[in-house]
Amino acid sequence: MKSIIIASTSTVHGSGYLEYLLDELKIHFNSAEEILFIPYARPGGTSHDDYTKTAAKAFKSIGKSVRGLHEYDDPKTAIRNAQGIFTGGGNTFVLVNQLYKNDVLMSIKDAINNGVPYLGTSAGSNICGLTINTTNDMPIVYPPSFKTLALVPFNINPHYLDPIPNSTHMGETRETRIKEFHAFNTQPVIGLREGSWIEVKNNRLTLKGSLEARIFEYGKTPYELPTDSDLGFLK
Amino acid sequence: MKSIIIASTSTVHGSGYLEYLLDELKIHFNSAEEILFIPYARPGGTSHDDYTKTAAKAFKSIGKSVRGLHEYDDPKTAIRNAQGIFTGGGNTFVLVNQLYKNDVLMSIKDAINNGVPYLGTSAGSNICGLTINTTNDMPIVYPPSFKTLALVPFNINPHYLDPIPNSTHMGETRETRIKEFHAFNTQPVIGLREGSWIEVKNNRLTLKGSLEARIFEYGKTPYELPTDSDLGFLK
Repeated sequence: MKSIIIASTSTVHGSGYLEYLLDELKIHFNSAEEILFIPYARPGGTSHDDYTKTAAKAFKSIGKSVRGLHEYDDPKTAIRNAQGIFTGGGNTFVLVNQLYKNDVLMSIKDAINNGVPYLGTSAGSNICGLTINTTNDMPIVYPPSFKTLALVPFNINPHYLDPIPNSTHMGETRETRIKEFHAFNTQPVIGLREGSWIEVKNNRLTLKGSLEARIFEYGKTPYELPTDSDLGFLK
Repeated sequence: MKSIIIASTSTVHGSGYLEYLLDELKIHFNSAEEILFIPYARPGGTSHDDYTKTAAKAFKSIGKSVRGLHEYDDPKTAIRNAQGIFTGGGNTFVLVNQLYKNDVLMSIKDAINNGVPYLGTSAGSNICGLTINTTNDMPIVYPPSFKTLALVPFNINPHYLDPIPNSTHMGETRETRIKEFHAFNTQPVIGLREGSWIEVKNNRLTLKGSLEARIFEYGKTPYELPTDSDLGFLK
């Protein structure tokens, strides 16, 4: 049974790393003693080791140990044997580039389809969608492809940000950017606000957290969906 | 003699398209009666025709006609024969993808090196740098490469935005993003605020407009440069 949490962010304002999700993660990773952490997105260019320590500290508070995928000589086998997988945020391009370099995208997908519980935050959530064409990140490296895990039949826009009223800045709003995406692509996009996540239980997709999500479907006016909505209609 | 204007934006808040630059453009395009417009960046997914009309309207006010590159069967020859070239903003990935598709990057570079005056705004400025690794745009299409014209020996970050004080949003600030870029790349980046531009006259590079620019050099603390600064030291 597939079991996935696709979270907008690791951290909500005024709270510690993963803190807002810990109760949920206790249940989600119930069967796992050790979590395999994929540190490839390297936020702020941090090292794989340092980033893994951050994840380990948060999981320690719910009694789980953490090992980084970079610690294994054979990452494919490490993924196949994982009890639970967490991909942290950072730069989506850096993450995807490293996943392709190590040729582990299919291994991760297979593990998840075999029932290994998965958590993604931010960049780690972007890769659950069809492509990373709707990431907010700066394209600081050039990956071999923008295609990702396609665990859900749409794209994710994490850290979704509403337009700032009365802004004098002429750069595009997030909504404008996603509309531009739909000038060249047809799949739906879910704008996930910080504190929201998508829960996947087998083939049931549900919006979770306390906020609404903004839904962008090709050829439709964007609209809001309340929390606890079933997202199974989006494809 | 090389003559280039690399502008942060086409439009500053409260003013019309290109309006803040028109006095400058009268001089810059002094020798040109007709401007060749590259509409490939398609802001908001607008058509090449509609986008060309927007550019034509602005240039009409300084007595210049405009033709879109998409109107020519042979874009390479059109570029070779151009009296002046303007690449408008929009989505940098869409722009670069189309430039590669039509195989015209070298033609544009040759024309500029032969003295054809060039104007870029936003995405049209990004392509003047070494790569588009520091664009702010959403990667809505996958171009064959991130490498661009290298008319200047650094990267551009247009629409440079200072961190918003007291923001509760957990997405990265622009400064953080450019620092991440330098975890993987070494070339300098110029953060050009809206209303600033770089003037290239032969091999002399000068910051223009009324604002400071923020300079990001590999391994250094970012710093401000006042307008009229010589940028020749950056490489």
